[in-house]
Amino acid sequence: MDELTDPLIRGDRRALSRAITLVESTRADHRTRALALLAELPSRQALRIGLSGTPGVGKSTFIEAFGKMLTAQGLRVAVLAVDPSSARSGGSILGDKTRMELLSRDPNAFIRPSPSRAELGGVARRSRETVRLCEAAGFDVVLIETVGVGQSETLVAEMSDLFILLLAPAGGDELQGVKRGIMEIADLILVNKADGALRDTALRTVADYAGALRLLRKRPHDPEGFPKALPVSAYSGEGLDLAWAEMTALADWRRNGGHFEARRSEQARHWFLSELRAGLLARLEQPQVRARLRETGEAVARGEADPDSAAQAMLDWLA
Amino acid sequence: MDELTDPLIRGDRRALSRAITLVESTRADHRTRALALLAELPSRQALRIGLSGTPGVGKSTFIEAFGKMLTAQGLRVAVLAVDPSSARSGGSILGDKTRMELLSRDPNAFIRPSPSRAELGGVARRSRETVRLCEAAGFDVVLIETVGVGQSETLVAEMSDLFILLLAPAGGDELQGVKRGIMEIADLILVNKADGALRDTALRTVADYAGALRLLRKRPHDPEGFPKALPVSAYSGEGLDLAWAEMTALADWRRNGGHFEARRSEQARHWFLSELRAGLLARLEQPQVRARLRETGEAVARGEADPDSAAQAMLDWLA
Repeated sequence: MDELTDPLIRGDRRALSRAITLVESTRADHRTRALALLAELPSRQALRIGLSGTPGVGKSTFIEAFGKMLTAQGLRVAVLAVDPSSARSGGSILGDKTRMELLSRDPNAFIRPSPSRAELGGVARRSRETVRLCEAAGFDVVLIETVGVGQSETLVAEMSDLFILLLAPAGGDELQGVKRGIMEIADLILVNKADGALRDTALRTVADYAGALRLLRKRPHDPEGFPKALPVSAYSGEGLDLAWAEMTALADWRRNGGHFEARRSEQARHWFLSELRAGLLARLEQPQVRARLRETGEAVARGEADPDSAAQAMLDWLA
Repeated sequence: MDELTDPLIRGDRRALSRAITLVESTRADHRTRALALLAELPSRQALRIGLSGTPGVGKSTFIEAFGKMLTAQGLRVAVLAVDPSSARSGGSILGDKTRMELLSRDPNAFIRPSPSRAELGGVARRSRETVRLCEAAGFDVVLIETVGVGQSETLVAEMSDLFILLLAPAGGDELQGVKRGIMEIADLILVNKADGALRDTALRTVADYAGALRLLRKRPHDPEGFPKALPVSAYSGEGLDLAWAEMTALADWRRNGGHFEARRSEQARHWFLSELRAGLLARLEQPQVRARLRETGEAVARGEADPDSAAQAMLDWLA
């Protein structure tokens, strides 16, 4: 048994950190150890909540307030960031902990920034494994947050049980700024900053999104009324309890209908297939293969070899 | 030498049709013959013009009028459609020839619809090969048209020397409907229907797009003033000669600066790499592999196997 397994199962945060560093490593021996570690962990289930919100909507404040509310109820909360490297500045470790200061000092919380050197596919793989580590460590809620750049929202939704979109109050015109595809994967739209001077705008924004959501086709795995739009204030804390009640109600409904497990099964199958594809393509990254690939690519670019035939010859050589 | 090679090089359209059917086939023996045929063809160079336009902009009428103008100048013109199956109805062969009736009867023109059973990646591969067949058959201009659904515009741009966007006259608000990414790959924006009652609207639309294009960063492979927006009328023929003059001027400029060949080299290298990747992933489509893949996928979905470990085991089995 791996020396990390036992402390990790007991919920030791340092062991969890080290295990995450292990699954994030690209070294072959680390990878072998990580797979062995993952294989021997018990399967525990947290509620995996995907959360997307662009900078400026108050996402850190929301996660801090929401997370503190959950830990106050005795729940253990892990927060993971999933972002391509382009979306974050270098000092993200410091950044994540600074912007969620209270939560990061809470013994029932665990905050892990997005891995650096972060090509999105690789981040997705490591994050899915990190979610499982957090579950094995006994966390009740795993919040997987993304800034919503490019494909990152879809990737986060694919590893979550629920997907939440956090938005700022906005005029009706800006409603179009939310891509239709994102509306379609959101289970709950939360309009933040529903306090003070922005309260009325926030409520109008909620009404606008509620209207837009009603135009979407009802999903078979959803009860009446979902997806929903709700106002929240990370600042005053208003609406956070209701938002959590809606999340747990939706999760319970899906559990009772078998949709919850069905979704996880589909995600696992999808993950298996995407790991398999990535693994096949990884053959092209081996040093010996790279060298030949570069040479052949140059010959093709110079017109000395035909792209199709060159690809076929390379495939024959690889087989 | 393949029996199709000689008539194809002489420009025989029936031989060209048969050769295209051959490269479109997924049968292994056809594939072998297609690769051999492609390898023995001389390299001739047509001007490859990608053309995107959604239904309703008058694309067929434009291609017919533009194509007839070129054949009247003694040029031989091939028209290929590149579209995912979702974008076209089943009767596309009849459709393409019917909607371009004059051009389809022109001995200096050749019209080929998008292959059916058309998953976009596959269409792209076959289309790139079809372009080369048309070049070997001595065509001077190859028009590669797409309805611009999803990724098809990018794919067409990746096999073209020039990329043209055909648009309808529209109010200023609708300018935003053209995705920024498409603006960035367009060399020329043609606003069609600049005739009759729509003439003024078309000219305003041209001005709007010209303004939007000026906001884009100048590209190193472009002379001053490109990308350009111009009015055309497929109906009256007005502007078609100017559009063609701009296309040839841009192509000549790029040829003189080495950008033309550099772009083709990059495209060939890209094509080689994407064929190679597709070939690696095609291993998963082999019957024996599919069976095991399905079984393992089910086990993963049932939670009996871990996605990572299952993927690794499958990779080991494949190696």
